[in-house]
Amino acid sequence: MTGKTTWAIPEGYIPEESTGPEPEMISHETVCFLNTNDEDAAVEITIYFTDRDPVGPYETTVPANRTHHIRFNDLEDPEGIPKGVPFASVIESDVPIVCQHTRLDSRQAENALLSTIAYPDPD
Amino acid sequence: MTGKTTWAIPEGYIPEESTGPEPEMISHETVCFLNTNDEDAAVEITIYFTDRDPVGPYETTVPANRTHHIRFNDLEDPEGIPKGVPFASVIESDVPIVCQHTRLDSRQAENALLSTIAYPDPD
Amino acid sequence: MTGKTTWAIPEGYIPEESTGPEPEMISHETVCFLNTNDEDAAVEITIYFTDRDPVGPYETTVPANRTHHIRFNDLEDPEGIPKGVPFASVIESDVPIVCQHTRLDSRQAENALLSTIAYPDPD
Amino acid sequence: MTGKTTWAIPEGYIPEESTGPEPEMISHETVCFLNTNDEDAAVEITIYFTDRDPVGPYETTVPANRTHHIRFNDLEDPEGIPKGVPFASVIESDVPIVCQHTRLDSRQAENALLSTIAYPDPD
Repeated sequence: MTGKTTWAIPEGYIPEESTGPEPEMISHETVCFLNTNDEDAAVEITIYFTDRDPVGPYETTVPANRTHHIRFNDLEDPEGIPKGVPFASVIESDVPIVCQHTRLDSRQAENALLSTIAYPDPD
Repeated sequence: MTGKTTWAIPEGYIPEESTGPEPEMISHETVCFLNTNDEDAAVEITIYFTDRDPVGPYETTVPANRTHHIRFNDLEDPEGIPKGVPFASVIESDVPIVCQHTRLDSRQAENALLSTIAYPDPD
Repeated sequence: MTGKTTWAIPEGYIPEESTGPEPEMISHETVCFLNTNDEDAAVEITIYFTDRDPVGPYETTVPANRTHHIRFNDLEDPEGIPKGVPFASVIESDVPIVCQHTRLDSRQAENALLSTIAYPDPD
Repeated sequence: MTGKTTWAIPEGYIPEESTGPEPEMISHETVCFLNTNDEDAAVEITIYFTDRDPVGPYETTVPANRTHHIRFNDLEDPEGIPKGVPFASVIESDVPIVCQHTRLDSRQAENALLSTIAYPDPD
């Protein structure tokens, strides 16, 4: 298993602060990385918006032979992603990885889930 | 990241008017576009039905280096998409883009979500 | 947009009779076909099980320039698909089509949804 | 329909013991295999973690012309997968198969569902 070095996720949305009874249930938008190489992957995420220039790169490392599940909510540098606005993301890695997009929406009493393998650039 | 110029989404369905307690929660069927090119994408959507000829093109623009999340509910020209009937869609762009399909179903008290990267025509 | 002539859906499961308060809410497992050709598509579905030989073909037609959303619940010939057992499906068409898999699970008061583009045989 | 011999699922998470009113509703993370060959498939699953070396292979067989839906919860040899921690998986088969990833999350009163075709290594 190798994977690809460039991936895209056109859908992205972090719901506003939840109003539900359980404040510890935080809605989150996640990207899951899998690096099956024997060397670490240096990953850069670029965030695209509807009405302004892209922001990034957000830099992270996926160690060799590890998975890394990142919440977009937690991205901070160069800046946090605003809630309640549509965004998209492009992931670039210096070694081949595999990416999957998952959302847990807990705005209401019961959770909703979505997931899809991201779009791999065929090169 | 480039993408493809032709995409298909065989699933499509806009639920009838919600009967839930919160009228502002509108069920919606969405397609998310990502254009990472330095030029705008001229996008045409064609809607396919079960028992009549396709309708379209619905025309939209995805600006350079932007994402654009469109609700099928909001398409109006050449005509609105009827609620409560199955449909499918084909997206064609003059430059490569990436497309993802998402539904938020709020017919009931709690939302349900689905999402998948659309099918890219390999050519 | 053309598509492929062979598709696979490894996941399949029709929940047993719902026990919820609204008997008209039927759980269903769906495959959505899109035929953008100018000729009809003759489609054959084969169902795979865990512990017995495959059943089929189930035959259907997707007319030229139409979409067709089929519930596995409604397949009857050569035999109905039993509820409460895992199955999988292979779709073969004489012209290229696109296939998407969707489930609405209404066993409980609130619906759950899943969807994914089916796996296209690259050949 | 043939498929591929190597597949990846970057997302994985088995929720902790449910606290809901119905203990028989077990949250599960599933991978669905489809083997359309006339010979059995010898399948090996390797599990990747965030902070330790991969574990495996977990060995299973998908008989000729059968589907096999496996819950990650049920994997025991060489060791059970811990609950409440992120993981990822790689599936390798000696003959081509097709893989789909599904989660049923029943931590709350109402279920949530996600599903996606896994990522096939193009070879």
